Amino acid sequence: MTTSPLATSTDIDASTILARVRELTEPVLRATVDRLEPWLAMMSAYHLGWRTVEGRPTPGMSGKLVRPALAVLAAEAVGADARVALPGAAAVELVHNFSLVHDDIMDGDEQRRGRPSVWHAYGSSAAIMVGDALQALAFDLIGAVGEDSRDGHDDGRGARAGRLLNGAMLDLVTGQAQDLKFPHRSWQGNDAVTVAEYQAMAGAKTGSLLGAAAAIGAELGGAQPDVVSTFDRIGRHLGLAFQCVDDILGIWGDPEITGKPVLGDLREGKKTLPILGALAAKTRVAVELRDALVQPVRSNEWLRHIALLIERAGGRAFTEEQATSHLDQARTLLARLSMPVRVRTEFDVLIDALTDRVR
Amino acid sequence: MTTSPLATSTDIDASTILARVRELTEPVLRATVDRLEPWLAMMSAYHLGWRTVEGRPTPGMSGKLVRPALAVLAAEAVGADARVALPGAAAVELVHNFSLVHDDIMDGDEQRRGRPSVWHAYGSSAAIMVGDALQALAFDLIGAVGEDSRDGHDDGRGARAGRLLNGAMLDLVTGQAQDLKFPHRSWQGNDAVTVAEYQAMAGAKTGSLLGAAAAIGAELGGAQPDVVSTFDRIGRHLGLAFQCVDDILGIWGDPEITGKPVLGDLREGKKTLPILGALAAKTRVAVELRDALVQPVRSNEWLRHIALLIERAGGRAFTEEQATSHLDQARTLLARLSMPVRVRTEFDVLIDALTDRVR
Repeated sequence: MTTSPLATSTDIDASTILARVRELTEPVLRATVDRLEPWLAMMSAYHLGWRTVEGRPTPGMSGKLVRPALAVLAAEAVGADARVALPGAAAVELVHNFSLVHDDIMDGDEQRRGRPSVWHAYGSSAAIMVGDALQALAFDLIGAVGEDSRDGHDDGRGARAGRLLNGAMLDLVTGQAQDLKFPHRSWQGNDAVTVAEYQAMAGAKTGSLLGAAAAIGAELGGAQPDVVSTFDRIGRHLGLAFQCVDDILGIWGDPEITGKPVLGDLREGKKTLPILGALAAKTRVAVELRDALVQPVRSNEWLRHIALLIERAGGRAFTEEQATSHLDQARTLLARLSMPVRVRTEFDVLIDALTDRVR
Repeated sequence: MTTSPLATSTDIDASTILARVRELTEPVLRATVDRLEPWLAMMSAYHLGWRTVEGRPTPGMSGKLVRPALAVLAAEAVGADARVALPGAAAVELVHNFSLVHDDIMDGDEQRRGRPSVWHAYGSSAAIMVGDALQALAFDLIGAVGEDSRDGHDDGRGARAGRLLNGAMLDLVTGQAQDLKFPHRSWQGNDAVTVAEYQAMAGAKTGSLLGAAAAIGAELGGAQPDVVSTFDRIGRHLGLAFQCVDDILGIWGDPEITGKPVLGDLREGKKTLPILGALAAKTRVAVELRDALVQPVRSNEWLRHIALLIERAGGRAFTEEQATSHLDQARTLLARLSMPVRVRTEFDVLIDALTDRVR
C-alpha cells in the first residue's frame, strides 16, 4: 500500500525532513571534523554548534543543513540511496561553513547563530585557520569518493562531483570579492551598485553552492549530465530565493529569531536587494530614501525611518516578488523531472517552508 | 653523443634550472590567476611579484618556484615530458602562496619578499580572500587534469594527484595550528616545546607540500605507486632541510638577502630549531640561554647575546647537521631510482645549492 501524495504532504513538515538529513549527515560531519588537529577540531565543533567555546559538548544547535538536504533529496530523486550522497552533503556543508567563518572575519560580524562568531571567540588568526581547515576537509571528503573503486570500476562520479564543488568555491570567492567592494561604492550616480550587479554577486556567493549541493547529490546518485545540470539550476534558484529572504530579515527580521541585531543590515550600511530595488524605482520616495541613506545618522529612529522609506518605495515588495519568482522557477524545473512521489513531496514541503519565510 | 654527467654538472647551475621551470610554469600560473575576479586577480598578481601594489606590471620578482621544480623534475625523472607536470607544478605553487598569504596575516608579518605583505598592502579581509582564491584555483587546476579524457582513457592520475594535494593541504593547516600555539608555550618545564614537536610541525607545515610537489610530478608523469611514494619522501626531506635553513637565516641571515629584519625570529620570540636544539643540550650554556630567553628584554644587543648563546650551546650546529642529514637522505633515495642522466644531474645541482645555503 502506498501513501497518497496528499496524505504525505500533510504528514511531513520541513523540520521532519531536515531532522532526517541531520541524522544522516551529522555523523559524517563529526567523524570528518574529528580528523583535524585537536585545537582546530575543537574550534570547528564550536562553530558547528556541537561544543561550547571552552569545548564542552552542547545539546547541539548548528545550522539548518539546507545544503545537505538538497544533496540528499537530489540523490534520492534520481533513484539512489541517500547514503551515496553523504560525502557530497557533508562537503557542501563544510564549504558553506568555511565561508561563514571567513566572511564573519571580513565583515566584522561578532555574532553567528546567536553566539560569538569564531573570530570573536578565538581571534582572527584561529578563525582564518578554522576556515582553511573546513575547506580542506570538504575537498578531502569528496576526493575520497572514487578511492574505493580504483580497480577500474570508478565511473568518475567522485571526480565530477569534485569539479562541481571546485566551481562553487571559485564562485564563492568571486561573490565575496564583489560583496566586499559594495560598501566602498556610493548610493547614487555612475558608481552606484545596480540590481543586476547585486544579483550577480548573490548568484556567485549564495546561488552557486546551493546549485552545487543539488547537482553533487544528483551526480553521486548516478544521474545523467542533463539531470545534474537541472538540479544545479534548481539549487541556484533556491539559493537566490534564500538570499532574498535573508535580505528581508536583515532589515525587518526579529532579532529573537535571526540572532542578529535589529535593522542590522541598515546599521551596517549594507547595499542589499530591498534597498537597491527601492532606489531603482526612481519615484519621489526613492529620491527621499537616497537622500536619507547618505546621511551619517545611525540612530534607531533614523534606521526605522529608512526601513519605512524602503518599504514605501516598493523595495520590500520587489524582493518578495524576486523570491517568489525564483521559487516558482525551481518548482517548474522540478516538475520536469521524474522522481519518486515521496521525494517530490519533500522537495515541495521544503520550498513551501521557504515560501512561508518570504511572507 | 651524450654529455658526460661531469661536464653537465659544471655547465648547469641551480638558477638555470629554476629559470627553465619558471619559463614552463609561469604562463600556466598567469593564465590561471587571470581567471579570477579582476580585483582578486590584481592582488594575487601583486603577491606573486608580477605587479606593483597599484597594479602596474613589474619586471617580475616572484618566489623561486622550488615546488614546481620538484614537480617538473620528478615527471621528467619517470620519463614524461615536463608539460604533463605543469598543472601540478602550478597547483602546488598556488597552495604554497595561499599559505604564505594567510600565514602572514596570522603571524603579523608586514614584509614578504622585500615588499609589503598582502594584508599589509590591502588589508586583512582582502588577504583572507586572496588566500582562499589561490587555494580554490589550485584545486580547480588539478581537478581539470582528467577532464579531457572522459572517454574512458582517464587512468585516474588527476584524481590521485588531487588526493596528494588534499593530503598536503590538511597537513599544512595542522602544521600551522601547531605553529600558532608555540608562542603561548613556555621556554622551560613540561609545557616547553620539544625538538620532536617542532619537527612534527615542520614536517606538516613545510615537508608535506614539498613531498606532494615531487609526488604529484611523478604521478602525473605516470609513475608506479612505489616511485610516487619515494618522490614524496624525497620532497619531504628537502622540505625539512629547507626549514632548517630558514630557521638558521631567521636568526643569522643577512636582512639584505632574506628581506626580513635582522635577528627576526629572536625578536618575535619564535621557538625555532636552533633554539630548541640548544636548550635540549642541557649544558651550562643551555641553562644560561633559557634564563636569558625568559627576560622580556628585546634590545638588539640582548638579541645578539642570545644568538651567541644559541651558537655556543650548539643550536646552530645541530640545525646544520639536521639539514645535512635530510639532504643526505634525499640523495640516498634519489640514487635508488633510475632516471635520465640530465634529470639526475639537475636534482643533484638543486640539492647542492641547498647544501650551500646551509653553510
